[in-house]
Amino acid sequence: MPTIKKERVTRHFGKWFRHVLMEAEIMDYRYPVKGMAVWRPYGFKIRQSLLRITRNLLDKAGHNEMLFPLLIPETSIKKESEHIKRLETEMFWVTRGGLTPLEINYALRPTSETAIAPMLKLWIRSHADLPVKLYQIVNIFRYETKATRPLIRMREVDNFKEAHTAHATAKEAETQVREAVEIYKRFFDTIGVPYKISRRPEWDKFAGAMYTIAFDYVAPDGRAIQVGTVHNLGQNFSKAFDVSYETERGTREHVWQTCYGLSGRPLVAMLAAHGDDNGAVLPPDVAPTQVVIIPIPYGGMESQIDEACSAVSNQLKAADVSVEVDRRADLTPGSKYFYWELRGVPVRIEIGPRDLKQEAVTVARRDTLEKQTCKLIDVVATVKKILKNIMGDMREKAWEWMNEHVHRADGLEEARRLLKNRAGIVEVAWCGNDECGHKIEQDTEASILGTPEDSEQKAEGNCVVCGNKAKAILRTAITY
Amino acid sequence: MPTIKKERVTRHFGKWFRHVLMEAEIMDYRYPVKGMAVWRPYGFKIRQSLLRITRNLLDKAGHNEMLFPLLIPETSIKKESEHIKRLETEMFWVTRGGLTPLEINYALRPTSETAIAPMLKLWIRSHADLPVKLYQIVNIFRYETKATRPLIRMREVDNFKEAHTAHATAKEAETQVREAVEIYKRFFDTIGVPYKISRRPEWDKFAGAMYTIAFDYVAPDGRAIQVGTVHNLGQNFSKAFDVSYETERGTREHVWQTCYGLSGRPLVAMLAAHGDDNGAVLPPDVAPTQVVIIPIPYGGMESQIDEACSAVSNQLKAADVSVEVDRRADLTPGSKYFYWELRGVPVRIEIGPRDLKQEAVTVARRDTLEKQTCKLIDVVATVKKILKNIMGDMREKAWEWMNEHVHRADGLEEARRLLKNRAGIVEVAWCGNDECGHKIEQDTEASILGTPEDSEQKAEGNCVVCGNKAKAILRTAITY
Repeated sequence: MPTIKKERVTRHFGKWFRHVLMEAEIMDYRYPVKGMAVWRPYGFKIRQSLLRITRNLLDKAGHNEMLFPLLIPETSIKKESEHIKRLETEMFWVTRGGLTPLEINYALRPTSETAIAPMLKLWIRSHADLPVKLYQIVNIFRYETKATRPLIRMREVDNFKEAHTAHATAKEAETQVREAVEIYKRFFDTIGVPYKISRRPEWDKFAGAMYTIAFDYVAPDGRAIQVGTVHNLGQNFSKAFDVSYETERGTREHVWQTCYGLSGRPLVAMLAAHGDDNGAVLPPDVAPTQVVIIPIPYGGMESQIDEACSAVSNQLKAADVSVEVDRRADLTPGSKYFYWELRGVPVRIEIGPRDLKQEAVTVARRDTLEKQTCKLIDVVATVKKILKNIMGDMREKAWEWMNEHVHRADGLEEARRLLKNRAGIVEVAWCGNDECGHKIEQDTEASILGTPEDSEQKAEGNCVVCGNKAKAILRTAITY
Repeated sequence: MPTIKKERVTRHFGKWFRHVLMEAEIMDYRYPVKGMAVWRPYGFKIRQSLLRITRNLLDKAGHNEMLFPLLIPETSIKKESEHIKRLETEMFWVTRGGLTPLEINYALRPTSETAIAPMLKLWIRSHADLPVKLYQIVNIFRYETKATRPLIRMREVDNFKEAHTAHATAKEAETQVREAVEIYKRFFDTIGVPYKISRRPEWDKFAGAMYTIAFDYVAPDGRAIQVGTVHNLGQNFSKAFDVSYETERGTREHVWQTCYGLSGRPLVAMLAAHGDDNGAVLPPDVAPTQVVIIPIPYGGMESQIDEACSAVSNQLKAADVSVEVDRRADLTPGSKYFYWELRGVPVRIEIGPRDLKQEAVTVARRDTLEKQTCKLIDVVATVKKILKNIMGDMREKAWEWMNEHVHRADGLEEARRLLKNRAGIVEVAWCGNDECGHKIEQDTEASILGTPEDSEQKAEGNCVVCGNKAKAILRTAITY
């Protein structure tokens, strides 16, 4: 059985990741604007697969897809004070139209709460209009002054999937937050990305939110990467924009809102979680091509081999498998293996003279690199079985790794050491006071992810800072 | 047989169109930025249908979908001199990041030639890399200073479908222009929008193009509306950006480029071409819901009617028809007819006691408003047949109207009169000189659409301006 090497993935993650993006022709980050990149055809198809999965989940849960404009007037974006305070330094501004200055400046949306609120005000009149559950998939902009990184830290995020909801009561909004968390769990489970769910500390919640729940994945270099967030907005925006409804009793009340979003980072996590030193490993549901067939034409059997390739390809297509025969004449079979492994195609079929004489083919799994011989009449069944099993195996392997990278530290010293060694997420006991939280952040030189939302585990022992009885577990990590 | 009224469509087109956009919940143009609007869920689904049709056509013809960033550096956009000259007054500029001015200004893409060219330069090395055929579906921006109109003249066009190609020879680029024209013909035929294809005059070609071919539709108010364009760029951009390849002979040559695009206007034309005084009429391939079933529950047969609705709905779903049962209790059947007619759902099925006693239902066609009784066992076959025929009938009717609105004028005086009466497109004989072209434009107070690309008809007689022998037919129209 071949060994899966992940040395380059774990030891040189940044380099490996950039290599895969460029060489597998997913994304080209040489575009002449910092933090903005180009999706190449293969990457675009992967992007579309992730959007399809997201859309299916949101549609099924009763969300309606819509589309709001990119530009937000300065007057709108400044209405909710916390919102503007946190975003002020991070926005791009349009100030000129043609050759003259505009009368009013427009922000390139950094997120769309303030684009949506004025419309909700027009659409929502009575309790019968609630709940509103909508989403849009758009490009958003952040004026990142830190070093940008392809897909991880971009100035244009071109596939922000943002959902926005409005409800009659605080309780319904709270229920919606739970639904959103479940939807995101299903999303990440579908692509085999493991996660920890934490409630962000007060000082790191979304601009204008009551609280923020986030999904974090630990990248192969031990750094946590935020891959999704769910926010309870309370009535902050509805009060700022006066979005209210007439209750059944005839009174008026401001709506309760939530919002939740996925950026381009789930793809980062998906590539990182499954990739190996040979390149990407794509889930069958995401892969633009699920099976590649590679002819090994020699020994005077060239035409039979070619026919067998077509026959197998047609059978698989009839069974709803997306398949490609790589007939390029200028490449050796070996360089084709290299090419398709780099691109993460889940299954490879090799058809050469030796196999064909026995009416068989060789089938290779991308995730384990295992090969097996398979009779021609069994090809469809074998491939279908692999495509069915591969996802479970990939998910399990990824979770195993993730679980090994969540640690409990007894004291600040141990936490610091673990974080310094990029051990992943480190949990410590915490009294619940912000002051101690900030101290943990400072002393470990890490970020606070927050308190667990995915575990019933009670905090034991004493706060690692003040020594008072611990009230919660606090998660920390070096983050992207 | 009911009469299809189109009085409001033709006499008050602008008003009718805005009414349909708002009341059928396609688009809400009350967003607080001029020329930018919000797609509502129903409209968004129609938008997605048009994108699906476009994608299928472009993919089938070998184009790859990609995605380029929104922002174009000032240095890039100014490289091709004709391009910037024509676009300079029409662009939005990002000049500020956070609280400080940017070192370099960025244009919101008005179109993407100058975003794509620097990347083509990186990707294209030899003749083996050609042709490149790519497209993207993006939001583009024009700083329109004229009165904006929903979907017709927007500052943000959020579904610009722009294709870009690069070729080794001028001849191949020319062939590509022909392919693009054929693709667009198929696109408009699919949604039943009639068109005239004209080569725009020199003074109205695309910024940086050698020549421009455009598709025009005549709106119900007699004004022409440009719905698609195909440009041969020659080597203008490839020289400005130095995009070259190594030929088979080992020399270097600049690539030959084309580009072609569809904005949001095909939807305008589609709604205008088929709509009537009751609202929109959608092609079955575009309609989010193809069949609506409306129960007419009275006479003690309520539960049987409800069951029949479910049964018919399930049968249609099994036959791949998208169907909805409108069970809203607070609306009368009549107001439901009104609701779904406004939204243009192609087929309506009414199920009431009278029909049901005879094991039948009533089937109504949206395009003709005709009703027929149909046995329950024949429902699927009947609906399938209508859905199959309806498009041909809609297309034919639309073309008939279009053909009635293309006229030949013998002299300037007649042309002026026809144009003044909003008769549609008016063709005149022309000597081919720009000077006479401009004179026609001035005297008729209309725009020149150009010379026919869709007709073999030769020009006869003499130029309506100078009286010299005519070399071409020139099309003019009052335009949007």
